[in-house]
Parts: sequence; C-alpha cells; structure tokens
Amino acid sequence: MQLGLVGLGKMGGNMAERIRRAGHEVVGYDRHSEKRDVTSLEDLIGALQAPRVVWVMVPSGDATRSTVEKLAGLLEPGDVIVDGGNSKYTDDQIHDVLCREKGIGYVDAGVSGGVWGLENGYALMVGGTKDDVAKVQPIFDALRPPEPEDASGQAMPGAGFVHAGPVGAGHFSKMVHNGIEYALMQAYGEGYELLAAVDLIEDVPGVIRSWTQGTVIRSWLLDLLVRALDEDPALDRIRGYAEDSGEGRWTVEQAIENSVPMPTIAASLFARFSSRQEDSPTMKAVAALRNQFGGHAVQAVRDQEVERPA
Amino acid sequence: MQLGLVGLGKMGGNMAERIRRAGHEVVGYDRHSEKRDVTSLEDLIGALQAPRVVWVMVPSGDATRSTVEKLAGLLEPGDVIVDGGNSKYTDDQIHDVLCREKGIGYVDAGVSGGVWGLENGYALMVGGTKDDVAKVQPIFDALRPPEPEDASGQAMPGAGFVHAGPVGAGHFSKMVHNGIEYALMQAYGEGYELLAAVDLIEDVPGVIRSWTQGTVIRSWLLDLLVRALDEDPALDRIRGYAEDSGEGRWTVEQAIENSVPMPTIAASLFARFSSRQEDSPTMKAVAALRNQFGGHAVQAVRDQEVERPA
Amino acid sequence: MQLGLVGLGKMGGNMAERIRRAGHEVVGYDRHSEKRDVTSLEDLIGALQAPRVVWVMVPSGDATRSTVEKLAGLLEPGDVIVDGGNSKYTDDQIHDVLCREKGIGYVDAGVSGGVWGLENGYALMVGGTKDDVAKVQPIFDALRPPEPEDASGQAMPGAGFVHAGPVGAGHFSKMVHNGIEYALMQAYGEGYELLAAVDLIEDVPGVIRSWTQGTVIRSWLLDLLVRALDEDPALDRIRGYAEDSGEGRWTVEQAIENSVPMPTIAASLFARFSSRQEDSPTMKAVAALRNQFGGHAVQAVRDQEVERPA
Amino acid sequence: MQLGLVGLGKMGGNMAERIRRAGHEVVGYDRHSEKRDVTSLEDLIGALQAPRVVWVMVPSGDATRSTVEKLAGLLEPGDVIVDGGNSKYTDDQIHDVLCREKGIGYVDAGVSGGVWGLENGYALMVGGTKDDVAKVQPIFDALRPPEPEDASGQAMPGAGFVHAGPVGAGHFSKMVHNGIEYALMQAYGEGYELLAAVDLIEDVPGVIRSWTQGTVIRSWLLDLLVRALDEDPALDRIRGYAEDSGEGRWTVEQAIENSVPMPTIAASLFARFSSRQEDSPTMKAVAALRNQFGGHAVQAVRDQEVERPA
Repeated sequence: MQLGLVGLGKMGGNMAERIRRAGHEVVGYDRHSEKRDVTSLEDLIGALQAPRVVWVMVPSGDATRSTVEKLAGLLEPGDVIVDGGNSKYTDDQIHDVLCREKGIGYVDAGVSGGVWGLENGYALMVGGTKDDVAKVQPIFDALRPPEPEDASGQAMPGAGFVHAGPVGAGHFSKMVHNGIEYALMQAYGEGYELLAAVDLIEDVPGVIRSWTQGTVIRSWLLDLLVRALDEDPALDRIRGYAEDSGEGRWTVEQAIENSVPMPTIAASLFARFSSRQEDSPTMKAVAALRNQFGGHAVQAVRDQEVERPA
Repeated sequence: MQLGLVGLGKMGGNMAERIRRAGHEVVGYDRHSEKRDVTSLEDLIGALQAPRVVWVMVPSGDATRSTVEKLAGLLEPGDVIVDGGNSKYTDDQIHDVLCREKGIGYVDAGVSGGVWGLENGYALMVGGTKDDVAKVQPIFDALRPPEPEDASGQAMPGAGFVHAGPVGAGHFSKMVHNGIEYALMQAYGEGYELLAAVDLIEDVPGVIRSWTQGTVIRSWLLDLLVRALDEDPALDRIRGYAEDSGEGRWTVEQAIENSVPMPTIAASLFARFSSRQEDSPTMKAVAALRNQFGGHAVQAVRDQEVERPA
Repeated sequence: MQLGLVGLGKMGGNMAERIRRAGHEVVGYDRHSEKRDVTSLEDLIGALQAPRVVWVMVPSGDATRSTVEKLAGLLEPGDVIVDGGNSKYTDDQIHDVLCREKGIGYVDAGVSGGVWGLENGYALMVGGTKDDVAKVQPIFDALRPPEPEDASGQAMPGAGFVHAGPVGAGHFSKMVHNGIEYALMQAYGEGYELLAAVDLIEDVPGVIRSWTQGTVIRSWLLDLLVRALDEDPALDRIRGYAEDSGEGRWTVEQAIENSVPMPTIAASLFARFSSRQEDSPTMKAVAALRNQFGGHAVQAVRDQEVERPA
Repeated sequence: MQLGLVGLGKMGGNMAERIRRAGHEVVGYDRHSEKRDVTSLEDLIGALQAPRVVWVMVPSGDATRSTVEKLAGLLEPGDVIVDGGNSKYTDDQIHDVLCREKGIGYVDAGVSGGVWGLENGYALMVGGTKDDVAKVQPIFDALRPPEPEDASGQAMPGAGFVHAGPVGAGHFSKMVHNGIEYALMQAYGEGYELLAAVDLIEDVPGVIRSWTQGTVIRSWLLDLLVRALDEDPALDRIRGYAEDSGEGRWTVEQAIENSVPMPTIAASLFARFSSRQEDSPTMKAVAALRNQFGGHAVQAVRDQEVERPA
C-alpha cells in the first residue's frame, strides 16, 4: 500500500526504510531532510491516492499539533492520520476530535525499538477505532518484529503489536512502557552500584554478564548493560546524568490521577531529576538544619561534623 | 566426576538430575527423601573418592550451618564443600574459616533458575579460591546454561557463570541479583496496575504481551507475566501478598552499610512488607492525626471525611 | 470594616466568629446554613458598602468557580474577591483574569488552622497585588494568630501571615504546606510503627510523649499524636485508612513539573493510596510472577512459600 | 547527689553545668579536657561514695565499649553505669550482661537537645531496671526540661523524659527519634526546594516564616529553618551535603528486621548518601543504558539527547 510519512529523522528515516523493504510505497516529507520525496504537505497529499494514510513522526507537542492541524485541513473524509511520535495521550484525544469533525480517521501509535528497530522491528501499541486501525494494519505488520517468540522459545501471538483501545490507548500504553523502563534501568543501576561499592566483588562486569543467561533478571536491558561495560568497564567515561523525555513524568502524573501507588517508577524519575542538579536545595536545607541544632556556624559544610548526641 | 549432594528437595533433586545427564556421578543424601542414595553423611563421604566435592543444598541458616560443620568434621584436607543454597555471604565467611582450619576448601555458589533450571540450566555466581573453584568446575559446567547468547543473538561468553571473587562473592552477587529482581517485579507490577486502573486500556493483557518483542523492557519476567495473565487475565484468583526470602533485606542492609542510595529496591521490599499487613500502624497514626487536627471524633475512619481547608 | 463571607460551614463559621470578635462586621451567606445573614448573593452585595471585600469559603473546584463567576457579575470595579478555600493555584489564575477584566480585585488566601483556628488563629498565605491585599489586611490581621513567637520564645515577625507573591502564590504556598504535612505525618507514623513492632519498648505512648519537650522532633503534630494515643493507646479503634484532599497530589505534580526530586512527600501520598486499596494489583502481579518462576500453581498465595534457591 | 561523669566534650560539658546548677555534685573526667576534676578513672571512682552513679558520655562504639569495660572492673556491686552517648541498642545489651555479672547496674539514656540543652533541658529516653533507673532519677530530673507543656499550653506530664523499657529501650527510642528527624528535615527540604523552584513565590523565607504559627506543620525544626534563612536567605553559603551519624541507618535496619515499611525515613537516608557522592554510579549505569538503546556513542553525556520515540 501507499503511505505518506511526515518526518524523516532518525526514527522516521529508519521506519521508511523498513516499510519499503516490506514492499510498500512510502512518500516522505520533511521540512529539512534531503531524503524527502516531496517538498510540501500539499504535494504529499497530492501524491497519495484516497483513501490515504499519513503517518506523522515529528517531535511531540507543538510540532505534532501543527502538523495534524495542517493535514486535517488538506485530507478528505475516509483518510487516516497516524501519530507515531511520543505524544501525550491527551493530545491524541484533542487531535481525534479535530479529525473526526472532518470525517478523517485518527490513530495513535506508540513505537518502541530505537536504533535497533530497523533490523529487529518496532513494537507498536495502537489506539483508534477498529476501522481506522484496519486501514493502517499493513504498515503496522511491516514495522513490527517478524517472528514473535518468547525467551523460552514459545510462539507468542501478539508480541510486538497491540490494538490497546480507542484513541489515546496507544500512547498511554507506550507511556507506561517508558515509566517501567525508568524503574528497570534504575534497579539495574542500584544493583551495579552496590556490586561496585564492595571490595569483595572482584569482577563486576563478569557478575553482570553472568546474569544474562538462566537467571530471573535476564532482559534486553541487561544485555545492553553488558555491552556498555564491555566498552567502559567502570563507566569512567560517562557522567551520571540522565535526561527524561516526558513519558516518565506523565506516567507518575497518571498514577497520581488514578490513585495508583507507584514508588519505584517515581523514585526513578526523581533520581533523574537529582542527576541533573549542580547542588540540591533540599539537602542545603537539611544541612542548614543540622547546623542550626548542632550549633555550628554556617559555612562550608563539608569540613565539619555537626551531628551530636542530641 | 563424582559429586556428593546433600539436600534433594525441589532444587537439589533437579540439579542432581541435570548433573547426571551431563555424565557425572551424583551420590545424594537427604534426611527424608526417597531419592537418596545413602542414609547418612558418613556413608556419603565413604562413597566418594578423595579429593571429594560435596555440594550442600539445604535451607540457609541453621540447616546449612550444621551441615557444613558436620561435613568439616568428616572430610579430609583437599576436599571441597560447596554451599549452593541461599546463604548470607557473611555465613560463607564463617564457614570458610571453619573449613580452612582443617585444610578443606570452601566455595559458595549462588544459583538462579528455579523450576526452569533443569531444562534451561542454572546461572551460577561463585566465590572461592581459584584452586577450589577449579575442582568444582566440571559440575558448574554441567549446571550452567549450555549455549550462552544474548537477546540479539550474539555469543556472550560468561553468560550464566561467573567466578566473582573470594568466598562470599558468589552469594553476595546472588543477593544483589535478587534485590534487583524485587525492583523489576515491582516496576512491572506498578505499570500493570496503572494500565488496569484506566478504562482507556481495553486489553491490558494484550498490551503486556505486545511488550515482549521489540521493546526496551522485554525480559524473561515480562514473558512470565504474560503467562500469568494467560491463566488469570485480571489476576482475580491471586492475592496481592508477597513473602520475601531474605536476600532483598540483605541487599538493602548492604546498601546502607556501604552508603549506596537504593530507592527502588528498598521501595520494593517495603511494598512486600505492606502486602502482608492486615492493617498499617503507620496509617493508623496518620489517620489519627488527621482526626486530631480536623477535630473529628476518633472512630471508624472510613466513613468520614476529616480533611479541612486548614 | 465590613466583610461579605460566602460559605458558613465549619471553617467559614468559625472564621466569621473570630473576625467579629476582632470588631469587624461580617455579612454571611450560605446556601443552607441557618447562620446566614442574607439569603442571596445579591442581598449580600447589597448589604455591603463599596469598596466591598467578599471572602469565598466554599469547596474548591466547581463550587468556588461558580461562586466567583457570580460575584464577578455582581460586584463593581474596586471591589475585591478573596478565595480562602483549598483551590488549586491555577484556578486562581483563571479567576484573576475573570475579575481583572471587570476591574475587580482578586486575592487567594491559603488558610491553615482547622478546628483550632478559632482560638489559636489561622495561618494565612496570601497572593495578589499589593493594593488588593491591603484592602483585606484588617481581616487578615483579625484571623492570624495574635502574638507570634517561636518555640524558643523569640518574637517572629511574619509568623502566621505572608504575602507570598502575585495571585496564585497563596494557594501554592498552602499546597506545599500540605505536601510537607503529609510527609511529616508519615514520618511520625513510621517511627510509631517501629516502636510498636518491638517488644523492647514497653511504653510506646510514653516514648512519643517524651519527645514533645526538648527534642529535635517536637512539633504540634507530635503533640496531637500524644493526644490521639491518650485516647486510644494502641490505636485499636482506628483503621489505617487515609483520604487525601488534593493538595498532596498537586504538590507532587508541581514537583514533577519543576524537576524537583520529592521522594518523601511522594512516598507519603502513595502510602495513602495504598491505605485505601482492598488489595494491591501491583502486588498481585508480583505474587503471580513469584509463582511463575517458582513453578507453583496459582491459587491462594498466602498458604504457600514459592521462593526458592533459584 | 554525686555523679561521676566521663567525657567533658561539648555535650558532656554542658550537661555537667546543668546538673551542677540543679545542686548536684559532678566529678568530671576526660582524657584531654582542662575542665576535668580528676585525671584517671580510678580517681573518679575514688572520689565517689557508694552506691556510685557514673555517666559515660563519650563517642559510641569502641570508646564507649572500652570505658564501660574499665568502669565495670573498677566499680562495686550496687553501683550504676549510665551510657548517655549515641550507642546502638545492641551494644547496651552486651554492656548490660558485662555489668550484671558483677552486680553493677546499667542504664542506657538517649539524650536529645544539642547545644540548646543547657538552657532548655535535655529530653531523655531511658532503658534499664526500675531500681537502676531510680538511682539515677535525680540526675535525669536535673537534665530534663523544667516545665513540660504542649504547644497548646496544656501540661504534659511525661514530656521530656521516659523510662521506655529494659536496657536498650532508651537508645532504641532515641534511634527512632533520629530516624524521624531525618524524614522531617527531608520533608521541609523538599517543600523549600519546590517553593524556591517557581517564580510565582516571591518571598520564600517569608512563606517558611509564616508557617511557624497557626499551621499544622509548625515545629522546632521549622523555627530553625527560619533562623537559617534569616542568616542566608537563599542558602547560597551552604552546600547540600549531609553526613549521617548512624541512628538513621540503624532505624532503617531495624525496620527491615521487623518487616516495617519505612519509605520516608529510608528515602531521607538515601538522600544523604546521594548528597555525598561526587557522581552516582547508578546514574552512570542509567546514562549508559540510555546511550545503548538510543544508539549514541558513549561520551560526555550532558551534551546529548539520547531519548527517542522508541
């Protein structure tokens, strides 16, 4: 089938490649990329036969909003817009209303796979009506991993793709995926730090590597940690500084909204915040308080011991 | 080679089976099991040719302590005792002194794999001297998973086995493994709960299943969660009650001992404690305080709203 | 001066009383209360001389929104509306725009003090322009605690009242106050639970009481905990169930919005969520996973030990 | 009465002063201090009439252990040793056995009050037999705060002193006190940080100060925070670096030992650990993992955005 693809960055470019390998025609547009096939959204629409499917793969927020709005003004009833970026699920619900008014279908697709997706396939979590999803299904089938099987070698129908519910359900599922991802990474990190903190463990990378087979905690992330330690055995070349891209925050916000206790994912998010602080105002206050009741002058705190039997 | 094996429970029995399949001779002893080959530790020792290797696979704590003490009284210099149970690493250090005095070698082996180990192999984390470990290596090779490869299909030498350091390093590594395990399970649990809490997600098991291929968070535990949801899609038949077997506690204690921040593993441990409480004394105190400053009589708290603009 | 007061519930009624004791005239309106002086908002406005100050003390959300909208339609340029309820600070910013268009002033006031406020005074955190705040100042002075002094007996100008910034700053400050409150209560609760968990402490209420004088952790909340234990020494008559009224959630949401690590306040909020759950879906998933890798049939989990040396 | 006092440091010296003001005779010994009245433990014992009470006020751990052992060798049946330092409660239990064998009484006293104790009095949490505690009671009465009353002005018998249980109960209570202290300080710190993070709040110290009167969260620690902000309004002169002196660690360890969920106190402890790290190994691992699945070269992480729609 034909697919219009808006956004040919690292993710979009690789996805176009994978879709083409599966035998589909991709007409790509990007404001800047030399890889683009057309030079405007109008030309993109013109190059596609109705009913059209246009996949939006641009940064979430303003860029996605404005692209969806423009497309909604250009497309015709029966066409479908897919947002494959990292949008907040509430944005999808707004976009859906916008499209629905014009008879245009809207599908949100959470996409996981990163730079490995071109070869391994992309996991897809999708939201929308049954009919709209069906129109995009050949593309989803091209993108998703080819032969799903679980780690025990059993076939797992449904691995790598889900139609999770109505519009928003795809990005909501991807958001939760990323929240979990934060906590998994933090958990491995904490274990790594403890191993590295004791003299008893003489081969920290070796211990991590041993876990990749036969254990309860084996995973793809653990394999990646082994790779990282192969390149930099004590992680000397990397700072303990981690950005976050929104989904972790949204996950905890949704937990709060729904009264769901979420201690590990929240702790992982806070650890990222801390990792980016030059100094911690909270701990300044704690240090100041210890000074106050310990009776020491407030100055360079590091050089004093202000605790007391008291 | 020959191996003496003390403890033929679920784990020990399966391990004996796997070792025999690899062509080794196992002489098994157990206080109760019908599977035992000999009826006393003395007979076990008598059935083995020096230098002997005796693997202890009994509950950690008193049972392991008393078994190691008895064996140390029976074995000869040059023999080796392996503790494959879930001992605390400090116990190993005590056992090592005990054995060393008599010229007997001591090796601690953390074993992961559960009921899947018989077929898939057991991951092994080992502590001891180079010489002692070498004496047991054929058994380790029989137990460990056969063809290590990572999830990307690349060979991973070292997957499934590590000689982590001196005595204690094996169980310390296994302890950290289990601590991580707690947090990974908690992370998936929190994500599951959020998905299940919102109407938007119409197919919660489907979302979980979709994550098993192509995503950042795919893992063996995730595959197991899919299996659990296949059997009980809303987990209606299972209570949210989780025991802990010691390693999680020891991991957090070691974090404290070594000044390692460990928020997610600690949170996972505390969640297990909470899961076993009929009611929370902490929250009783919180509820009592809200009553006090809200000015309500203390009674069945559930039926009142005691918060205030205050 | 004259004050119009909308909302004569527990808080509003006590505040009216305190303001009257200070010599001001209060015209009170409430949809239901017998204490009301007038029977409509129109009559309330009619009973006040311009420039008017009308204090809104109704539930946050819809009730406050609709009251402010009605008042904005009835009042005249130069009048001032004060929202003394528990509104979210973003609501204030919306209300401010609404009032500003009509030349009406808007002030938000976070009020703390609960049932103790009538006698002890109410702490006030206020947001608005300098001019608008000045118009309400006599009322603020009537409400706030009379003779501020710190626990050491030193005078503390500013204790009990602050003009924190522009509109929204009052409720934002009150929101953070309540977030801190959650964590303080949780901290005392955790300490209480540990004391109560060990046989060593023979007089738990006595220990708590001893802390109320001379210690680092003495506080009003601690005094209240003593009162609660006086009434119910083992808290047997109270369930560990705690509602939350919004500010705790908003505090953590704002922390996320501003990249502020907030582990203790978030943990306190999650503990409240947990306290209200019949069973924990997260821990169901954890229990299910332990079953899966321990190889036990899924059933009443409590009766089995599924952990393993594995 | 007479009191022997070993240790005349900041705490011991002030306590001696307060005890003398109450009319008691203090014979002080210290290895170094010029304030000492005798130059050896032998002389100290010689200067006291039986039955003697000797109060040990030296650093916990080895110094206390060795002092108690020496005193136990010098004292006579019927004498009493009081350990007023910050000992772990399990040390007390060892000391008690040691003394009991010789007919010497042993009392452990957790002391709170810091540099403020000389004037305000010291809160005391005491463990031991009824008879032993009775022998020391006049000294306890001299040290404790004079006129206990709660923040509402009501008399609180028991404020500032408790006989909590048998030997160990005093230091256990003090340990929990300090654990709570950690979380209270962290809670105020988190609130402070959020206030300071937003432009909306124009007077952060003013907001903190306003809370000291009439609010739910007023406390001595809050008063101290006001003092700290008076001296350094943005805490610019103080680093966010906080030591810990043991009790916080022990509190969390005891929580683990007793299966008590303790999320806020543990989080406060971990925050202190983090405050002392140059860089976080955990976050290095997290950053490394993000690099791996984002496909970026590992280098100075700060300069890149490695998150993905993936």
